[in-house]
Order: sequence, then structure tokens, then C-alpha cells
Amino acid sequence: MKALEEKILAEGTVLPGNVLKVGSFLNQKIDSDFIMEIGREIARLYAGEKITRVFTVESSGIAIAVAAGIALHAPCVFAKKHKSANMPKDVYTAPVYSFTHREMYEISVGKDYLGADDRVLIVDDFLANGNAVKGMMRIVEEAGASLAGCAIAIEKGFQGAGDELRAQGIRVDSLAIVDSMTDESVVFRAQ
Amino acid sequence: MKALEEKILAEGTVLPGNVLKVGSFLNQKIDSDFIMEIGREIARLYAGEKITRVFTVESSGIAIAVAAGIALHAPCVFAKKHKSANMPKDVYTAPVYSFTHREMYEISVGKDYLGADDRVLIVDDFLANGNAVKGMMRIVEEAGASLAGCAIAIEKGFQGAGDELRAQGIRVDSLAIVDSMTDESVVFRAQ
Repeated sequence: MKALEEKILAEGTVLPGNVLKVGSFLNQKIDSDFIMEIGREIARLYAGEKITRVFTVESSGIAIAVAAGIALHAPCVFAKKHKSANMPKDVYTAPVYSFTHREMYEISVGKDYLGADDRVLIVDDFLANGNAVKGMMRIVEEAGASLAGCAIAIEKGFQGAGDELRAQGIRVDSLAIVDSMTDESVVFRAQ
Repeated sequence: MKALEEKILAEGTVLPGNVLKVGSFLNQKIDSDFIMEIGREIARLYAGEKITRVFTVESSGIAIAVAAGIALHAPCVFAKKHKSANMPKDVYTAPVYSFTHREMYEISVGKDYLGADDRVLIVDDFLANGNAVKGMMRIVEEAGASLAGCAIAIEKGFQGAGDELRAQGIRVDSLAIVDSMTDESVVFRAQ
């Protein structure tokens, strides 16, 4: 998605530790018109798939998932990272290791919200080492639902998880794939 | 908003501890078409206000804030609850006490994302004791921005924070106000 690549070049900054900061339009601050463009692009890619659930992990995936859900007219489901007082008792869970925070956490989804009849699209803002996506895939499997694919805003291609998933036959659509980045330049994979 | 009251009656459940669970359409699972209806209703209410920032706290406010931001064509800003590795160094912060989790936490927003020129609409899924909204108001004040008002999906009227804010001259628009609830019935305030 050319517009996303241009936005990354214009507003993104590369920080130490392979961090691509896009807080000005995709994370802490959201460009609402642009997020809706992303949502429509995801809906276009999965138009024939009869998606019944757009699935993400709180909290950075929520904005993109909501935009995609609005464009697809499909409900969103958010895996929670911390069990909260209001969570249903019956949940699917999966362990996820966060490189950003250097800790293990558990993601969970109420069993009422995802089931065997669902056709699921996993959506996230970033795909780097793939741990969050793999945790969500485990929950989709546990629910007996079918996975249509993974729609990602920004894939860090150089970390390999996207290609590893593709090699396993999983459909992964990343709107921008960063093949290398330094504080001087960001190089995108031609798509 | 009649449609929200009907949805609460049809799908909401009252749990011990004054919890109104609406996980099937407003929290863990989001009814995307309905959240966009809520967003459009918020945009209608604040149409003349030239909103430049829709402001919420992660993570349960994000879906409604994004829908309102899309409808208002205004950027969203999310206060974070935990400082993360990718946060800007210069942040506004405010302490918030969570009754749900019985703990203090700090909310923070990068100073780049909210400034003195901004006209801010605070958005959240619930208004109960008002601590999250008051924390956000403190950040709006610290930023020197102006507050247009607070748009809330569900206000727990019996907890008093909404009326307390209104008495202070703050504009608070709640799409549904629950004046009392038991596991038998939910009573809405006439609006």
C-alpha cells in the first residue's frame, strides 16, 4: 500500500533496538481518515472470504481491527492481555512472549466470542517475530474456527516471521514490508 | 440513543459489584456496524465543535474513539496505561485509580500528540466513578488544550460522576444513562 509506505517515510522514525516508531499516525495518535483507508484496503483484499471475525490483541491492534471490521461489516474480537474482573469464565488462552517488554504474557478470549463456525481474519499493526500472531492462531485453532489469513499494517520483513508463516501456507498480507531499516533509511520490499 | 439502550437490554448482563457486562458488542467483541453508528452519533452531537483530537485511554475506549474519529475526520489520541519502550520521552501524565482492578495506574500521552491548539473530545465506553475521565481532563489542562466535552457510551448514572461533572459546567453526553440496575432489570434515565 503505497500510501502507507509514504507515511512511514514521512513520519516514521527508527529507534535503537529495531523499533520503527509510527506513533504519530498508527499507535498513540491515529490518523482516522488514514486508518479507515487501511481498513478499506484490508476489506478489499479479503472481500471474497466471508469473514465473520476480525481478531486482534489489545491494545495496539484495536484501531486497525476496528477500521477493518467497519469496512468488512464483520464483528471484531480482541484478545485481552491481562485477565480482568469482567472477563467471561470460559476462555481460550495462549502464551505469548513479548520482545518489546521482554516478558511472557497470556492472551485470552471468551469462548462465547469465537467458535467453530467462524471464518477469522487476524489483524495487527506490526508483524515482527510473529509471537502475537502465532498466539492468536493457536486460539483460532483451539476454537475450531478457520483462518482466512493475517492482515498486517507493517511487517518487519528482516525478522522473518512473515515469510516463515507464508512458507507454512498461511496467507499473510502486509500493507508495507520493511526489508531493512537504519536511522538513515527504510527500504520496503516490492509487492 | 435508543439503539444502544435496546442493545444493553438484549445483550447486557449485570454481574455482582455493579458490573454491566456488554462484552458481546462493546468490549471483547465489537459489533462493527453498531460501533460506527455510535461514532456517527457522537460526530452529530459535536458537529459544530471543530474537534481536532478524540482522546481516550487504552484499551476499552479505543474502538469507540476510532469510530468517532472516523466519523468526525479527527485524529484520535490514546493515553497509555503502562509506559512502554516505544513511548516518547516527553509525556503528560495523570494518576488514575481503577475500581475494577483496585489499583492506581498512571496514564500518559506524548506531548507531540496533544497541544495548546487542540480542541479535545474525550471519549470512553463507560463513565462510572469518573476517574479515567478526570485523569484525561487533567492531561487536557496540562497540555493547555480546550475541552469540548465528554462523549460516553454508557454512563452509570447511579455512581454520580456524570452529574458531578455536569454540575461543574463540563459537557457530558452519554448515549445511555443507567440510573439503576439489578440482575432483573436495567433502568435508563429519560434523555
